[in-house]
Amino acid sequence: MSDLSKIREHVEANSGRFVDLLKEACSIPSVSTEGNGFDTMSDWLQTRLERLGASVQRLNVPGSPDALLGVIPGRGPRTLMIYDHYDVQPVDPIDLWISPPFEPTERDGRVYARGAADNKGDLIARLCALETYADLFGELPFTLKFFIEGEEESGSANFENICHTFAEELRSDDCVWEGGWFDHDGRPQMFYGCKGLLYAELTAKKLSGDQHSSIAVYAPSAAWELLRAVASLKDANGRVAIDGFYDDIVEPGAAELDLVRKIPFNEEATKKHLSIDRFVNDLTGEQLKRDLLYTPTCNIAGFTTGYGVPGAAKTVLPAEAMAKLDFRLVPDQSAEDIGKKLQLHLEKHGFDDVKLEVLSGENPSRSSVDTPLGRAAESVAKEWFQHPLTVYPLMYATGPMHPIAQGLGIPICSPPGVGRPDSNLHAPNENARIADYLDIIGYTTAYLDEYGRQ
Amino acid sequence: MSDLSKIREHVEANSGRFVDLLKEACSIPSVSTEGNGFDTMSDWLQTRLERLGASVQRLNVPGSPDALLGVIPGRGPRTLMIYDHYDVQPVDPIDLWISPPFEPTERDGRVYARGAADNKGDLIARLCALETYADLFGELPFTLKFFIEGEEESGSANFENICHTFAEELRSDDCVWEGGWFDHDGRPQMFYGCKGLLYAELTAKKLSGDQHSSIAVYAPSAAWELLRAVASLKDANGRVAIDGFYDDIVEPGAAELDLVRKIPFNEEATKKHLSIDRFVNDLTGEQLKRDLLYTPTCNIAGFTTGYGVPGAAKTVLPAEAMAKLDFRLVPDQSAEDIGKKLQLHLEKHGFDDVKLEVLSGENPSRSSVDTPLGRAAESVAKEWFQHPLTVYPLMYATGPMHPIAQGLGIPICSPPGVGRPDSNLHAPNENARIADYLDIIGYTTAYLDEYGRQ
Repeated sequence: MSDLSKIREHVEANSGRFVDLLKEACSIPSVSTEGNGFDTMSDWLQTRLERLGASVQRLNVPGSPDALLGVIPGRGPRTLMIYDHYDVQPVDPIDLWISPPFEPTERDGRVYARGAADNKGDLIARLCALETYADLFGELPFTLKFFIEGEEESGSANFENICHTFAEELRSDDCVWEGGWFDHDGRPQMFYGCKGLLYAELTAKKLSGDQHSSIAVYAPSAAWELLRAVASLKDANGRVAIDGFYDDIVEPGAAELDLVRKIPFNEEATKKHLSIDRFVNDLTGEQLKRDLLYTPTCNIAGFTTGYGVPGAAKTVLPAEAMAKLDFRLVPDQSAEDIGKKLQLHLEKHGFDDVKLEVLSGENPSRSSVDTPLGRAAESVAKEWFQHPLTVYPLMYATGPMHPIAQGLGIPICSPPGVGRPDSNLHAPNENARIADYLDIIGYTTAYLDEYGRQ
Repeated sequence: MSDLSKIREHVEANSGRFVDLLKEACSIPSVSTEGNGFDTMSDWLQTRLERLGASVQRLNVPGSPDALLGVIPGRGPRTLMIYDHYDVQPVDPIDLWISPPFEPTERDGRVYARGAADNKGDLIARLCALETYADLFGELPFTLKFFIEGEEESGSANFENICHTFAEELRSDDCVWEGGWFDHDGRPQMFYGCKGLLYAELTAKKLSGDQHSSIAVYAPSAAWELLRAVASLKDANGRVAIDGFYDDIVEPGAAELDLVRKIPFNEEATKKHLSIDRFVNDLTGEQLKRDLLYTPTCNIAGFTTGYGVPGAAKTVLPAEAMAKLDFRLVPDQSAEDIGKKLQLHLEKHGFDDVKLEVLSGENPSRSSVDTPLGRAAESVAKEWFQHPLTVYPLMYATGPMHPIAQGLGIPICSPPGVGRPDSNLHAPNENARIADYLDIIGYTTAYLDEYGRQ
């Protein structure tokens, strides 16, 4: 391991410039759902990458903003990919922002701006780490491929296509993913994979329009049909009752379970926060943590039909009903396959008037928890951070890891990044602590160096 | 039967004055849900009743606007009650009214005003019929009790208490109910009873607030609990699965079934109107009509939880869920009893976090279909109206008949009144056809006379 204090000193000496660079990046609006700022942002990034000695290729597929691939040559045969995204979430509700979202502002030791944490904070920290590495150590001991997409916040609709189309250009040995974060207790978090997601909208329509409920004797009810259809998706024990739902699940290995055992989980504090007395199925201990990572869910994200004013009595037979379901999937379930099985379930049980539309699907992703990158990021984290590291073999949220990890066969590790629970990701007043940002620049420099030594 | 043409001529001769009286009544706002106009309206009615020779008593119970009881003495031992209500529905959405709701306006042979049909049209027609009777025939051949409440449109919350408190004053042999109406084909309708209604709001709350759905593994779901609770209320065949739900049902008698057989029901036109291929359970023929009147329902009037924007994918674990259920009840089910059985069902099946609130309850009502009043109203209707009469032993909607028919033991008959399918009851541009209004004045005069002859 290199001299960490030397890295700290260098980052400290350049901190003003590094923070200015983050602010400059965050001053460019690049909201992917609104389709603006793509060119300004990708041009700016291309310039930054080129200053680091990268040759930059714009990866273009029809209907998608350009992704950037900046290749910095280095010594040795190994290639490391860094994945980030240059787009950000929308800013609404705009009136809750204390300072304008695209006018980065320092307050209380933080930079407030849309993207300050997710994901420009990590992205720019990594650019600064590459500069720091060059200043301190010179040429990289591996080839670096900086891969930056522009559609992550709108669902990475073209990401799989981009990865497939440019598979040769993207070939790498390991992939650094968008950063992990610090938990409530200040512990840095690291991930090797993620759950998948199938988001399904079910609708039923039975009548030409809402009717007086007195004719419910003979007029069919969309509300009842959809309610029964959704109810049929789970058995009395809460297990998903779709045929074959659990078929493709691969049990976690010993190394993954060993990591699960070490994850801290404060059950009492969590119950208190949620105002509950017990967890589902009285889950506790190792089983709770294992299920959180390795058990798929079928969640009702919404169900809407008929009259909804609390306390008021309106009798109506609704003509239509809509349910929204999200299934969190685990390796090796596939979103497409589960969507098909859901459709078959509806047909098999005779819910002919229930229409299924899949609104989004991302496959779960699993990477080896024993890779050169993972070992480097873990070992440096233990030295670098004040608090102990938590390593999740799988994160229980979802990201577009699958096209990289499974599609291209590049194992992923997501080392700690700049986010905190109060960074307001996807919310007004997004922010990053300046101390965290500088810390991550230094930490990244150190694990890049350590990766070169593996 | 008296000379009907004599009655028609008298009504025709006084038509201008009769229509003015309806307009005067409809110019007084008396919206019960807004609690206004009660005194102005009841004072106006008291004056009208006193001019007809009635002694008027104001029936007052705490928390309720006065009901009026106007007693007009007559020959003979028999007493006939007429029930109506002087309150009207709210006027919203006000901007859809072509002329202001409380400025009665004639257009296309109709009076447009809130209450023109429901129920001031019937009420004023009956006042005019009493005047016509006096002019043509003199003293009534029975005592008449005109009973007018002020809370029907807000659920008759105090009606049972009023009937109970003033049982002695209200004692009568028969009761004329708020009028029936003309159907799409112009056929006059008549009713002897009605279904009951239990309106229940079920709510579930599980968490301190909405959560990211990734924690659905361990955080309980209000949406799932409430959905399963509602689903448990019916079995696979659509029968209500609440213990004892069907226990108190009294099968209709031969005379009632005979009336059911004669009810016209155009199945093909109804299916076409609803855009359906088949009725629930493939109901058809006699069974369809019988079930419409004599089978209770459990209808989902609303179900609301989580995210509801069509086509958009938001993953959320909702903290709360709400369902609205309306049960249409049949004799001798009771709203209170079914409410208790529903509560027991939820407890028995372990839905401990589902809270039940009964928002309203009205008991079904059944009266003999062979009474002096019914015979008078039916026989005159057959002579008076151009189209054949349809007699429903029970109407499949709900009204507060139970406190009169069962509470006081006074058999009810609801002879044809001024409403039509296009009268826009409870909607903007409520109206009554002037020809119908005058027709009902004459018809009422004739059946009062015929009742006196029974």
